[in-house]
Amino acid sequence: MTERLIVIGGDAAGMSAASQARRRRGPQELEIIAFERGDYTSYSACGIPYFVADTVEDLESLIVRQPEVFRTKQQIDVRMRTEVTEIDLDKRAVKARSIDGGKETWEPFDQLMIATGGIPIRPPLGGIDAAGILGIQTLNDGVLVRQVIEDEDPKHAVVVGGGYIGLEMADALTARGIKVVLVETGEQPMSTLDPDMGEFVTKAMRAMDIEVLTNETVTAFELSDAGHVTGAVTDRRRLPADIVVLGIGTRPNVDLARAAGIEIGPSGGIVVDQQMQTSTEGVWAGGDCAEKFHLVSRAPVAIALGTHANKEGRVAGINIGGGYATFPGVVGTAVSKVCDIEVARTGLKETEADAAGFDHLTVTVDSTTRAGYFPGASPIRTKLIVEARSGRLLGAQIVGKEDAAKRIDALAVALWNEMTVDHMLNMDLSYAPPFAPVWDPVLIAARKAWEKVEATLQDES
Amino acid sequence: MTERLIVIGGDAAGMSAASQARRRRGPQELEIIAFERGDYTSYSACGIPYFVADTVEDLESLIVRQPEVFRTKQQIDVRMRTEVTEIDLDKRAVKARSIDGGKETWEPFDQLMIATGGIPIRPPLGGIDAAGILGIQTLNDGVLVRQVIEDEDPKHAVVVGGGYIGLEMADALTARGIKVVLVETGEQPMSTLDPDMGEFVTKAMRAMDIEVLTNETVTAFELSDAGHVTGAVTDRRRLPADIVVLGIGTRPNVDLARAAGIEIGPSGGIVVDQQMQTSTEGVWAGGDCAEKFHLVSRAPVAIALGTHANKEGRVAGINIGGGYATFPGVVGTAVSKVCDIEVARTGLKETEADAAGFDHLTVTVDSTTRAGYFPGASPIRTKLIVEARSGRLLGAQIVGKEDAAKRIDALAVALWNEMTVDHMLNMDLSYAPPFAPVWDPVLIAARKAWEKVEATLQDES
Repeated sequence: MTERLIVIGGDAAGMSAASQARRRRGPQELEIIAFERGDYTSYSACGIPYFVADTVEDLESLIVRQPEVFRTKQQIDVRMRTEVTEIDLDKRAVKARSIDGGKETWEPFDQLMIATGGIPIRPPLGGIDAAGILGIQTLNDGVLVRQVIEDEDPKHAVVVGGGYIGLEMADALTARGIKVVLVETGEQPMSTLDPDMGEFVTKAMRAMDIEVLTNETVTAFELSDAGHVTGAVTDRRRLPADIVVLGIGTRPNVDLARAAGIEIGPSGGIVVDQQMQTSTEGVWAGGDCAEKFHLVSRAPVAIALGTHANKEGRVAGINIGGGYATFPGVVGTAVSKVCDIEVARTGLKETEADAAGFDHLTVTVDSTTRAGYFPGASPIRTKLIVEARSGRLLGAQIVGKEDAAKRIDALAVALWNEMTVDHMLNMDLSYAPPFAPVWDPVLIAARKAWEKVEATLQDES
Repeated sequence: MTERLIVIGGDAAGMSAASQARRRRGPQELEIIAFERGDYTSYSACGIPYFVADTVEDLESLIVRQPEVFRTKQQIDVRMRTEVTEIDLDKRAVKARSIDGGKETWEPFDQLMIATGGIPIRPPLGGIDAAGILGIQTLNDGVLVRQVIEDEDPKHAVVVGGGYIGLEMADALTARGIKVVLVETGEQPMSTLDPDMGEFVTKAMRAMDIEVLTNETVTAFELSDAGHVTGAVTDRRRLPADIVVLGIGTRPNVDLARAAGIEIGPSGGIVVDQQMQTSTEGVWAGGDCAEKFHLVSRAPVAIALGTHANKEGRVAGINIGGGYATFPGVVGTAVSKVCDIEVARTGLKETEADAAGFDHLTVTVDSTTRAGYFPGASPIRTKLIVEARSGRLLGAQIVGKEDAAKRIDALAVALWNEMTVDHMLNMDLSYAPPFAPVWDPVLIAARKAWEKVEATLQDES
């Protein structure tokens, strides 16, 4: 008998799951229907700021695979512009309706994959729903921003919040010739970094003529008579704004799952086990809507990142298809290019290490990206957060003009293996003058951290 | 009573050892004398090709620390242009003589650090010692090559052997407007890579108008009446040459140690324990003259690399100074920039895995350095060598236009931790469109390798 898999959401997690399930079970065994409310499936959401900046010119290039390809090559029945409005776990069916038509039908399933993604956090401020105030999550959002830029020719933009998407959008809007003011409630933007590292981001942005206001909060918006945003009001001033981008971040989109009685975790994401199965058998979740296990803090976290979505979707799909795979968790690696600097982090930052109950110490090392004498060598700052007595690596942050991003990977693998800094300081990392000083900054930092651990232990003995 | 440490060789290993010993024991406790036969101490030998290319203009910038700084800041008695000609372990003394003067004295020691480095392999060919045939090892060698280029204005160069230094020198000589022919006995240059990866290097060199002759061997040299090289003869042809650079590699310089009765290992390097102590108590070694333990093959190896020299010198110096440190070994990481491509390797290549007795399989993945749609994305090829049944990573090679070098580090850390590919395929490596596709090539390769391991196991069951 043919089983049926329904996928809610055509994002990377949903479509990866569908593809992997299909690889293992043919159309005679498994019927697959995927519902996507937007106009695009299986695209790179992380590419949106670059599409807005016109660094990436072609919208199509962001789309990994078109719906038609899923239909013809994999017999996956992708139904675009179709919204799922309810999940009934007893009937094992979902209610779906076309956004254009409004026809509503119940579609039964044997297996269900929930890939509803995230939704931009919209602070409950006066005027927040006005025209010209845009969150960035889906490719439709990206298309809209670009259309607004081209149709309305905005002169002033306010970006609310200095998360990754906020910073990347500030950069993108600046590239389009718009004067950008970024308003960040905290001490520094990029709050996934410790403030001493975030400071570099602020400097780089200011050098690109982006105004960065810190310790300042947007409290309301001003609108025109026609209901279009004209300004943002903060606790300190009024800022003109023809366009406002919300860059605070996203939260898991779990309304459907919660309403159905599927367990939601403390992070706000759908609870899944290592196979990506939810609290209900045969119901799976992955991507930004699903909770992740943090391998360092051992706590559930919500992290919206395409690379996790792809991996989780793959794992869910293999299991749905009758195979076996697990997703062990994350260590919180994230990188971004902001203006001309690379920002990278992995593991826990100081406040996160505190919250997880780790007694920790930190070291910060200023070095160069290449051998100091090699043309193009530029400053790079590496910070490690280390458990004070054991020397176990807890987290790392790197900021610099090049190779910060790929350099963090060595530290991510070290975290993955629960390494201590004394085990790390002699690691055989690559060295040649165009790529690194003879002591790579990562090794210098590990060495200094170990010296500090030893000193701590001696002081106590 | 004051002890005396004698250091033979002012390279990175020797001077790191001296500095570390001094940090722990002041001049009242430990007298330190360092003998260096050349004109420079503590310099970056890896920078020499870039100095020859004039990419690095200033000789001084290659020198990490001048002898005078060691003398005044650390009370290390650095004696330049002074050669040690004999070690007497019974008397615990070395015989030293000034290269300029010829005065010969016996200097007693309590501790001895041997940092005699490597020497370029000079094949026993007719004419090998002629003027214009140059090996590249010390900074003096680099100065000489540059002087020859500037004084003699050579038009044709032959590089004998396609090791790292050979390739980098071919690149450097080309940058100086010299027509270069590289002659490599093997199937491809860069024999630290498997031939299928080395092929990329050949292509990149040919694209830069460097002639690469493979499966061809230099058999003799032709000399002018004045004894200067004029050509190289191979088993197939005669090549004009105003300058010849030996790029076959180096071997550990252990003549002094061997003559003294210090144990030399199968790799040709001085045998050391994990603290960098030789077979004789109180006699230490580090850098290119010392044997290294390969953590994957578990065999002793000779690898000439500045980053190892620095680490080993540090470890020896800490132990000489009464502290405790160990050098666990290497995993064979090496990177190079050849023309416009980055070449990176770690662990074992196929023939090395064979020699170590590993039943292995390989996967090769062609991907892009950045998200495919991101401007500047360029091809990158990643190869993994994996134990066939366990899936344990044995080695990796990456070739591409950017980020090959720092990407290999994640794999070096994976080797350091003896990871299997199934444990690697979900690793939390950094992702953002300017730096990587959503599945980093390293993860794709791990995934494909794991699929191959699974298939192998199924075939057998």
